[in-house]
Amino acid sequence: MFDNASNTNLDSLGEFGLIKKLTALHVPKNPNIVVGIGDDAAIFAPSPNRLQVVSTDLMIEGINFDMAYTPLKHLGYKAIVANISDIYAMNAIPQYVTVSIAASSKYTLEALEEFYRGLYIACEKYNIDIIGGDTSTLTVGLVISITVIGEVEHDKHVSRKGCKPNDLLCVSGDLGGAYLGLQLMEREKRIFLENPAMQPDLQGYDYIVERQLKPEARKDIIELLAELNIIPTSMIDISDGLASEVKHLAFESNVGFDIYEEKLPVDTQTLQLASEFNLDATMCALNGGEDFELLFTVPQSEFEKIKNNMDISIIGHATEQPNVCNLITPSGNVFDIKAQGWK
Amino acid sequence: MFDNASNTNLDSLGEFGLIKKLTALHVPKNPNIVVGIGDDAAIFAPSPNRLQVVSTDLMIEGINFDMAYTPLKHLGYKAIVANISDIYAMNAIPQYVTVSIAASSKYTLEALEEFYRGLYIACEKYNIDIIGGDTSTLTVGLVISITVIGEVEHDKHVSRKGCKPNDLLCVSGDLGGAYLGLQLMEREKRIFLENPAMQPDLQGYDYIVERQLKPEARKDIIELLAELNIIPTSMIDISDGLASEVKHLAFESNVGFDIYEEKLPVDTQTLQLASEFNLDATMCALNGGEDFELLFTVPQSEFEKIKNNMDISIIGHATEQPNVCNLITPSGNVFDIKAQGWK
Repeated sequence: MFDNASNTNLDSLGEFGLIKKLTALHVPKNPNIVVGIGDDAAIFAPSPNRLQVVSTDLMIEGINFDMAYTPLKHLGYKAIVANISDIYAMNAIPQYVTVSIAASSKYTLEALEEFYRGLYIACEKYNIDIIGGDTSTLTVGLVISITVIGEVEHDKHVSRKGCKPNDLLCVSGDLGGAYLGLQLMEREKRIFLENPAMQPDLQGYDYIVERQLKPEARKDIIELLAELNIIPTSMIDISDGLASEVKHLAFESNVGFDIYEEKLPVDTQTLQLASEFNLDATMCALNGGEDFELLFTVPQSEFEKIKNNMDISIIGHATEQPNVCNLITPSGNVFDIKAQGWK
Repeated sequence: MFDNASNTNLDSLGEFGLIKKLTALHVPKNPNIVVGIGDDAAIFAPSPNRLQVVSTDLMIEGINFDMAYTPLKHLGYKAIVANISDIYAMNAIPQYVTVSIAASSKYTLEALEEFYRGLYIACEKYNIDIIGGDTSTLTVGLVISITVIGEVEHDKHVSRKGCKPNDLLCVSGDLGGAYLGLQLMEREKRIFLENPAMQPDLQGYDYIVERQLKPEARKDIIELLAELNIIPTSMIDISDGLASEVKHLAFESNVGFDIYEEKLPVDTQTLQLASEFNLDATMCALNGGEDFELLFTVPQSEFEKIKNNMDISIIGHATEQPNVCNLITPSGNVFDIKAQGWK
């Protein structure tokens, strides 16, 4: 049944009414917040002797997400995950986020509340507080801008710059799933557009769909590294794809990498779906993106500590050839790794 | 002469090439930056015993600015000013900004470089460093998201909440100029659209035009208050207009305000132009917005310290009637102050 009450036009609220509505759901958890949402700026007390870590991200409808198959609650969740993943990639702990959103008039109050519900679920899970934001209107679409702030001990932060030749190249979890999840949903969208009576057929691919719609950030890996007393020599999160990220590490650390194709961690659902789509699973793992796994390097001396960990794969090692990133196939062929965004 | 070399399509650079181009101009000034632009996140060392202050803002083409009369360099400058103004409004000092930008394909590399030049000029003037950002593409228009981080001593921060009845309501500088600058440029745009051979006639209104296109944030007032040893009981910056801001202070501090019309500081150019446009100068001062002046309250005991300051006007006082904001005319008439965004 169509219910008018659940379609509140944003204009009817006024900007300040909207902000109050959206943020009313949130109870700050962090006792160090001195001034939270609702002032010119937020204020918090940093922990003594910690460095502050800041990252920011834009998400644009039609570029970074497609409303045809992205539930707003999932979008909110993913927006947080994508951002805090960058903080974990510095070996740091995220604590605060600001969320700005510009939406066209097709988005109702209820739609934005659903988006915020997703934000709050992620904040709850990762123990983060929303401390500020901004709202605006757009003629078309939806733009989300998130900034996340965290902290790290002085001697524990990890950038992209510290990798040395012969360091081991490691990756958490598995790769390519988020990309195939996207392909799957693009297919179902096409089918739906051709025949709106058809229901999406995602059965058997729950893991893949979740990799795309509700990814997680690898807080657990950062905690594991701390437990193992390992500080990576360099680290980056996989948002654009393994190929692009490995090039960043190579460029910033002035090394090269040899990556062994058979070591790439790919889930069985990913393999199966890749074959269904006539896609090469290795290419999906290399160029897919949005897996939000951590790619990092450790000295060879740490090998024993990680070799048996189910959640970390050693996929190659750094070389002395700056910016030369090779993929080595099981038969010994060597391919130059290419990536989007690098020209 | 048309010069092809100065119209570089953004796609030809790749995202990482673009970021490197845009940020190459910037040399970090703050020695506390541990990791700057170009990693997953930026890292900085906060000063000991200081609180961290964070604010964020979205600027949307067609909503917050009109490219027809906004030079990109000015837009960059204003984007910084609008954001750091929020930090000053907490009685804090801005230090770091992140700048995210999403642009349609009509924006070339040279256009974005011009925007960044404006950012850098403002950063230079206000002693701020850009430590991060994100770039993306849009189908239409330009979206800018800026987050600014600063710091303040523990016992010096000022929110919107501390005003007490009888506190004096003060405002820096003058009001309504930015709004009339906007009206002036809207008029010249209409004339230009009707007859493209006409050149804009802005003569005699340089101050007004600058108030709109190249506003300043009141760093000097924060420094002055520190010198005078005054900590305001509440403070806000004027971005939406005096009427809206005074309602924020009233709401958050649970007081009311009486404002005296004849005390409102209005520049002679503003008065002159208001009369030319058949606008009421008081309405422009109340509802204009974008003046980026500071509106603050101080106890009556501070009266002697500020009464003769040319840059601060005492425009009224707080009352015990929550949320009742009155404008009192010279003849003693009392009007309820209304503002956009409040419903």
